[in-house]
Amino acid sequence: MAKALTSREENYSQWYNELVVKADLAENSAVRGSMVIKPYGYAIWEKMQAVLDKMFKDTGHSNAYFPLFIPKSFFSKEADHVDGFAKECAVVTHYRLRNKEDGKGIEVDPEAKLEEELIVRPTSETIIWNTYKNWIQSYRDLPILCNQWANVVRWEMRTRLFLRTAEFLWQEGHTAHATKEEAIEETKQMIDVYKDFAENYLAVPVVQGTKSDSERFAGALDTYTIEALMQDGKALQSGTSHFLGQNFAKAFDVKFTNKEGKQDLVWATSWGVSTRLMGALIMAHSDDNGLVLPPKLAPIQVVIVPIYKGNEQFAKVSEKANEIKKALEAKGISVKFDNRDTHKPGFKFAEWELKGVPVRLAMGMRDLDNGTIEVARRDTYEKNTLQIDGIETYVESLLNEIQENIFKKAIDFRTDMTTKVDSYDEFKKVLEDKGGFILAHWDGTPETEDKIKNDTKATIRCIPLDAPEEDGVCIISGKPSKKRVLFAKAY
Amino acid sequence: MAKALTSREENYSQWYNELVVKADLAENSAVRGSMVIKPYGYAIWEKMQAVLDKMFKDTGHSNAYFPLFIPKSFFSKEADHVDGFAKECAVVTHYRLRNKEDGKGIEVDPEAKLEEELIVRPTSETIIWNTYKNWIQSYRDLPILCNQWANVVRWEMRTRLFLRTAEFLWQEGHTAHATKEEAIEETKQMIDVYKDFAENYLAVPVVQGTKSDSERFAGALDTYTIEALMQDGKALQSGTSHFLGQNFAKAFDVKFTNKEGKQDLVWATSWGVSTRLMGALIMAHSDDNGLVLPPKLAPIQVVIVPIYKGNEQFAKVSEKANEIKKALEAKGISVKFDNRDTHKPGFKFAEWELKGVPVRLAMGMRDLDNGTIEVARRDTYEKNTLQIDGIETYVESLLNEIQENIFKKAIDFRTDMTTKVDSYDEFKKVLEDKGGFILAHWDGTPETEDKIKNDTKATIRCIPLDAPEEDGVCIISGKPSKKRVLFAKAY
Repeated sequence: MAKALTSREENYSQWYNELVVKADLAENSAVRGSMVIKPYGYAIWEKMQAVLDKMFKDTGHSNAYFPLFIPKSFFSKEADHVDGFAKECAVVTHYRLRNKEDGKGIEVDPEAKLEEELIVRPTSETIIWNTYKNWIQSYRDLPILCNQWANVVRWEMRTRLFLRTAEFLWQEGHTAHATKEEAIEETKQMIDVYKDFAENYLAVPVVQGTKSDSERFAGALDTYTIEALMQDGKALQSGTSHFLGQNFAKAFDVKFTNKEGKQDLVWATSWGVSTRLMGALIMAHSDDNGLVLPPKLAPIQVVIVPIYKGNEQFAKVSEKANEIKKALEAKGISVKFDNRDTHKPGFKFAEWELKGVPVRLAMGMRDLDNGTIEVARRDTYEKNTLQIDGIETYVESLLNEIQENIFKKAIDFRTDMTTKVDSYDEFKKVLEDKGGFILAHWDGTPETEDKIKNDTKATIRCIPLDAPEEDGVCIISGKPSKKRVLFAKAY
Repeated sequence: MAKALTSREENYSQWYNELVVKADLAENSAVRGSMVIKPYGYAIWEKMQAVLDKMFKDTGHSNAYFPLFIPKSFFSKEADHVDGFAKECAVVTHYRLRNKEDGKGIEVDPEAKLEEELIVRPTSETIIWNTYKNWIQSYRDLPILCNQWANVVRWEMRTRLFLRTAEFLWQEGHTAHATKEEAIEETKQMIDVYKDFAENYLAVPVVQGTKSDSERFAGALDTYTIEALMQDGKALQSGTSHFLGQNFAKAFDVKFTNKEGKQDLVWATSWGVSTRLMGALIMAHSDDNGLVLPPKLAPIQVVIVPIYKGNEQFAKVSEKANEIKKALEAKGISVKFDNRDTHKPGFKFAEWELKGVPVRLAMGMRDLDNGTIEVARRDTYEKNTLQIDGIETYVESLLNEIQENIFKKAIDFRTDMTTKVDSYDEFKKVLEDKGGFILAHWDGTPETEDKIKNDTKATIRCIPLDAPEEDGVCIISGKPSKKRVLFAKAY
């Protein structure tokens, strides 16, 4: 193992960057802002994909695939959308290279200029609604419930692994409906799916709410979000679901004949989560020794480390370890038997701690003689020596317990870090001294929102769906307000 | 249903194009050369991915993800590679758009020109070997066995859905090894994996072999291929596995310390299959009524069509149909109960035939009274009325039988369409009158290969691995040859 991680206390941001690289999750590439997702990091993403994909299919969606490139003119068709997306993006202008005349290297062939530039998709509403136009004639063709797993590109100036990268991986759902009510229902259903996933798989509690006007998706009438709290007290927007109204149908002229035989514009939603969820997963649970992975998303749930001297002992311990591995695997648990003879147990312990494996089993000759094994939890560092007999049942329930414990810890943290404030002074003091989520009354105007953002860098994360109605006054303007909204500094 | 498909006899190419679109597999998009893969087509691709992904993991590989963009200069580093790939490709030159001064639309911002252009990956050897450089110091870091599921772009002039598109989906494996022998072993292993997949899942028999110098992958020392025969007598290259020697290690300076403590260049392989396999699947088995899908890759394996008049009959038939559906699903069979009341049974029959569902069950009131059901096979059109009791066991074995029968039919076709010829006149006659695979002696020179290609458009598909040693003379030059090679016109 190389030197220890920077601690969270010392420098949270550096701790994160080091952890992502040292735990073999991802690294920066030779291409500015683009990352390489390494096998261990990708294995976590694959587990996320599998769970989400099943949730999407269980709610009636199918996957499809739409082009990477979008003609430039498509972006001009939806006025808000172009402002939100078409500006900072990768533009393909040519389709050929040629050898340089001096023979040294290659250059763009000026003869191979595209008539119309192509934009590398930053999101696919435009190309998809241009396609849906041909799929929809009658109400019988509706709803269309498609999802796409894809890469997208947004030319970000300041990038951070997983949290903000020029290219990232995501899924984008795009649905088309005959009625407004059905589209709103779909929008809400998908933000519920995301909450379910965040809480029951990532073990990250989230606040569901709607975005204020200024934070809404470019082209949406309403944006639903799930907001998670990281250990440094900053919020991370973890998934969004947009009710797009008839905006894209208007822009791409997508009409259908309704049951009454009349022409109507189609109603739209879109919703997505991305590799950003990897950032949420890492930042919500991990500690100064490395990753803490929720068992449901850990590529390796249990590691077995043998303690031995010499080949004879190794053979004996290995035999038992392989038995245990099989018994665990029979229960659907993923197990790594770390039988490397190039590293000592202490090194292995630290490495698997760094990589966040939820349960570590260690076994030496004395254990073998006694029929025991040492069980260590990654989340609490608790260690117990237990009988090997029945260990697979114990580990199975321990994994569930760890999943629950990680989630509970995150909830407790969020409870501690959520503060109600009733004045702007208090707001600023809490933000500065403590951070976290702040619940405060707001008069609903963009001016107030802007002022707070400019003063403090805190933004309205959402107007929580479950906020109770209460009489209050805006902390800035003193105007009346009916519910508190959620403020925080955010990633 | 719209009008019937053009028949294969009448116009094979048009039959293919119509089938792809009418069976809801894919369609052309607004972006030249880029396709939209529709949900039904994508569901087949997902099934392919799942099987292949498992095969890759079972042979020790992990998935990872590398950047979409590759700096232009990377392509100049491997001399052969640049000639093969860097020419016809999408080039990103700018990273921002701006509003036009006249307020009408948007344009590329000339201020936002990239210092170095980025190429949208046509294949990822260069960016991956530039990454591997930092992953490899010692023999202990080897082998690296990565695979990537990704989109790639090659600026093709003439495109056809699935067979040749500017953007396509694929997987690309990239492995790094300490020894030449191990790399060659890996190259061969992966072409065996592809053959296994093609024959046992796609039900398409393939000839394994190596490519001649001129058909080899740009940058490879040896390219292994699997070649399939389509119903029009043309070959389709369906997967390749490349032994890259130390070419990319040289180009990107990737060295490791071997067991003897000496520096050595790393050995490489790469291998891939793409959405082109969808083309193989469609063209190998389908008929004038539509798709014929091998059961192992069919998104819907069984469709149940109810025959009824009025709500009362519908309720009765539905009840039984749902029972049968459950019994089939309990066996892991995917079933669609087509309970649409907007279409008549005849329409449904034709639609599911077009979509290639392997088994159709139809049931009306008389069946219900007799405890029978009609079972129709897509591959042979055979129909039988059978007892409902135990139908799930019958259907299960029928699906296996269909899988085998489709494969056998394709093998028989290939046997009929493979001809040994011993003179150039015979070669040309067979090619013109019959088509298919031609086995002929070749003197091993690119000149001969070129002449044949220029005269006839036939190319050497491969030098088959299982070709028996026999004394012969080249059909062009009369020079001695030790084995026959495989010629065909190809997609």
